[in-house]
Amino acid sequence: MAKTAITPTREQDYPEWYQQVIKAADLAETSDVRGCMVIKPWGYAIWENMQRKLDDMFKATGHENAYFPLFIPMSFLEKEAEHVEGFAKECAVVTHHRLVDNGSGGLMPDPQAKLEEPLIVRPTSETIIGATFARWVQSYRDLPILINQWANVVRWEMRTRMFLRTAEFLWQEGHTVHATSEEAQEETRQMLDVYADFAENYMAMPVIKGRKTAGERFPGAVDTLSIEAMMQDRKALQAGTSHFLGQNFAKAQDIKFQSESGDLTHAWTTSWGVSTRLVGGLIMSHADDDGMVIPPKLAPAHVAILPIYKNDEERAVVLPYCQSLKAELEAQTFDGAAVRVKLDDRDIRGGDKKWQWVKRGVPIRAEIGPRDVKGEGAFVARRDIGGKGTGTPRGELVAGITKMLEEMQQNLYDRAAKLREESTVELNSMDEFQKFFAEDAPGGMAYCHFVDGAEMEAKLKAMKLTARCIPLDGKEEKGKCIFTGGESQQRGVFARAY
Amino acid sequence: MAKTAITPTREQDYPEWYQQVIKAADLAETSDVRGCMVIKPWGYAIWENMQRKLDDMFKATGHENAYFPLFIPMSFLEKEAEHVEGFAKECAVVTHHRLVDNGSGGLMPDPQAKLEEPLIVRPTSETIIGATFARWVQSYRDLPILINQWANVVRWEMRTRMFLRTAEFLWQEGHTVHATSEEAQEETRQMLDVYADFAENYMAMPVIKGRKTAGERFPGAVDTLSIEAMMQDRKALQAGTSHFLGQNFAKAQDIKFQSESGDLTHAWTTSWGVSTRLVGGLIMSHADDDGMVIPPKLAPAHVAILPIYKNDEERAVVLPYCQSLKAELEAQTFDGAAVRVKLDDRDIRGGDKKWQWVKRGVPIRAEIGPRDVKGEGAFVARRDIGGKGTGTPRGELVAGITKMLEEMQQNLYDRAAKLREESTVELNSMDEFQKFFAEDAPGGMAYCHFVDGAEMEAKLKAMKLTARCIPLDGKEEKGKCIFTGGESQQRGVFARAY
Repeated sequence: MAKTAITPTREQDYPEWYQQVIKAADLAETSDVRGCMVIKPWGYAIWENMQRKLDDMFKATGHENAYFPLFIPMSFLEKEAEHVEGFAKECAVVTHHRLVDNGSGGLMPDPQAKLEEPLIVRPTSETIIGATFARWVQSYRDLPILINQWANVVRWEMRTRMFLRTAEFLWQEGHTVHATSEEAQEETRQMLDVYADFAENYMAMPVIKGRKTAGERFPGAVDTLSIEAMMQDRKALQAGTSHFLGQNFAKAQDIKFQSESGDLTHAWTTSWGVSTRLVGGLIMSHADDDGMVIPPKLAPAHVAILPIYKNDEERAVVLPYCQSLKAELEAQTFDGAAVRVKLDDRDIRGGDKKWQWVKRGVPIRAEIGPRDVKGEGAFVARRDIGGKGTGTPRGELVAGITKMLEEMQQNLYDRAAKLREESTVELNSMDEFQKFFAEDAPGGMAYCHFVDGAEMEAKLKAMKLTARCIPLDGKEEKGKCIFTGGESQQRGVFARAY
Repeated sequence: MAKTAITPTREQDYPEWYQQVIKAADLAETSDVRGCMVIKPWGYAIWENMQRKLDDMFKATGHENAYFPLFIPMSFLEKEAEHVEGFAKECAVVTHHRLVDNGSGGLMPDPQAKLEEPLIVRPTSETIIGATFARWVQSYRDLPILINQWANVVRWEMRTRMFLRTAEFLWQEGHTVHATSEEAQEETRQMLDVYADFAENYMAMPVIKGRKTAGERFPGAVDTLSIEAMMQDRKALQAGTSHFLGQNFAKAQDIKFQSESGDLTHAWTTSWGVSTRLVGGLIMSHADDDGMVIPPKLAPAHVAILPIYKNDEERAVVLPYCQSLKAELEAQTFDGAAVRVKLDDRDIRGGDKKWQWVKRGVPIRAEIGPRDVKGEGAFVARRDIGGKGTGTPRGELVAGITKMLEEMQQNLYDRAAKLREESTVELNSMDEFQKFFAEDAPGGMAYCHFVDGAEMEAKLKAMKLTARCIPLDGKEEKGKCIFTGGESQQRGVFARAY
């Protein structure tokens, strides 16, 4: 078996491979605070690229950024019954506003500084933002309100996994208010489309757009739409959600407006979000047994130039060549901006240097030693296609860099789409379903007839499976629910999920 | 007296004027959580522009962004004695991780879910980041570490004022580790220079670079440098700080490295930060009795085009003209990017439209009615110079927009510098000092000889005055401390402060 940079391989132990890729690519690490991670510079730079692009897309669809308090008064959670149920169980509760000497050299919360009302560290901000919107909205002229917030949130998860499920995570949460149900539903759908566009065209991660079943809805929502992706272990990842909240939160927070005809009505609201979980999705979509593989559109650096030299004399020849190559490459463009080039001039072994960049997933490596300088070329390797790379004339590298990056971006998408296609089936009986999801089977995504309800939920739970969504582009088709035998009009998507 | 858009005026009641400008310009509002504010879209957009520019400057000086946990274990604070003293008194303490039904229809912290060790919501991150750095640093080859974090922090202030002092605020905190004291001190100074550059060239706010006296140092720092600005009420605002932490935090957090010669030594660290307080500084530097005035380089929109029409017929003439003017203006550049133009096509009264943009402080207004369309012109007003504006030919407006913005940027700086110059004095006796800072005197910044110590601090405190800094470019000059009569080699800057 070929030696790989990551041990274990995906085949050997997928969950452990995932952790090792994160470590080897220097993306993140666990912190001294239970369930919270430290996002390291290389991982954070990927998140920044995601943010920048999403932010542009939100602004292009008319949204503005704002910032709301980190804390939510406990009483705010009490107002929306389902919402309490969903979030009260796993939150960080602030009860004091001062520490004091504990008499034995340490500190303790000061009993004299107990808050009258405990505060919750926001697990999501519908309640606090809704209370603010209630002040902003008076008349139909104030609508729509289209707001986004980039923030940190905390959900006290007991079992955490870096990027996928952490106690604190970074995200954006959109919150909008509308005069009609139709307009709010259009907004909900529009933002789902934005997420799908981002996932497919930037993350190179194909997704299914769908509607959640009742049991998987956001607590308090009338309807939850989501994008669902398939990871390399054939498990599904919910990568973004867009909620139509109806008038539920407007009633709980008293968001009312005077309509054109003078009536006072509750408004219609939506919320939608994606988080640092997307970085986890990126890893599990594209990384391989040698480490991270970053789609060029989100890569902090598109090209790593690696000068390889044995002594100061060689260094004096190689380095200036690398610097001028860097400038030439940076004069090229990709995805509407200058190509990002990193020149790694650290004085370390060539092999170490190479493997660090392989593991970090930089799209293109250009290794350059004295011989390459002499031959006016570079040893060029694209991260997504195997092999050691090839000697390439300098002019060809520079002229072809844009195309190379475009091809890699497309190849990552195609590769992920192919795996998903190969692992997607239509199943028509519980027997087929059980076989497909048997422990020793590869699994994947199964399109099945279903009747949404407690019976289906219970059976899925017992099998550790989930209803992912009811595809928005699904065709109408009569059939029998494989769980209950009831009449069904459309297939849903079922899978194991993160 | 001329009618002003803001009541009261600066002259009448400066603190209340400040609050009213924030309200009239739609920058922020108080929230439902004590001491926390909601930053509204127009205010947040100013902060985003600040962030973008500062982030570029940090990256240009070799720093990378990362993200560390919101929470700090209580025991971490205990490790650095001065630091505890500085921050334990005013922090948010998380003690539980779940809410539970309180038996009477409400919620309460679940006694079954009490944390073994309380967590503090970060008031600043030296301790948690230091603990992480201790893992990252092994050898001199790992140094320097140059990290920045954009984050929210919480300090439980009892008396809050929007942007200037709030319980939660947004900021950036740089944290770096170095192999030598000299290098860490250079970093401390470099980042102060970055802040000063940003304050003067982007915020149009002149600053004094200086060293803090012992009593004003960051808790745990060896040396704190700061930039100090003067507001229109002649009080000083500390606008950014850069701390040389010596080995204090490295020892508390055990950040050690093996030097080239093989010795194991504690590293040298720095930290530096600016916050949303800068938005407060911007308001108090430039706003006037008609509302906000935003320096063009930080303005969310450079130009507001205001179509003025009475009916649909006029609208049909005016709007297309405004749209094409918008496109022409956007094709111009300012500060290295396209001119930002906002076309306000809301169907509201012309006067209301105009005054909203005056109060929001947009640099240039172009009001356009049917007559302007006919005359191929616009009614143009620059926010910083009084008067109603003038009729300007369209071509002239487009061709001159860049220069107009540059001139306004410069004028704001000059105006602020002039006020500071007029309000800055050298004082040589306590008598002069008391007269200068008498309650009915205008006050300002006083350069005085001093001997740093408890006696001076006590006298200043009694007069509600503060030592702002010891200017870095101050000349050596023998003199007598006005507080103690002791020998002094240099003047310090004294002022009332925010």
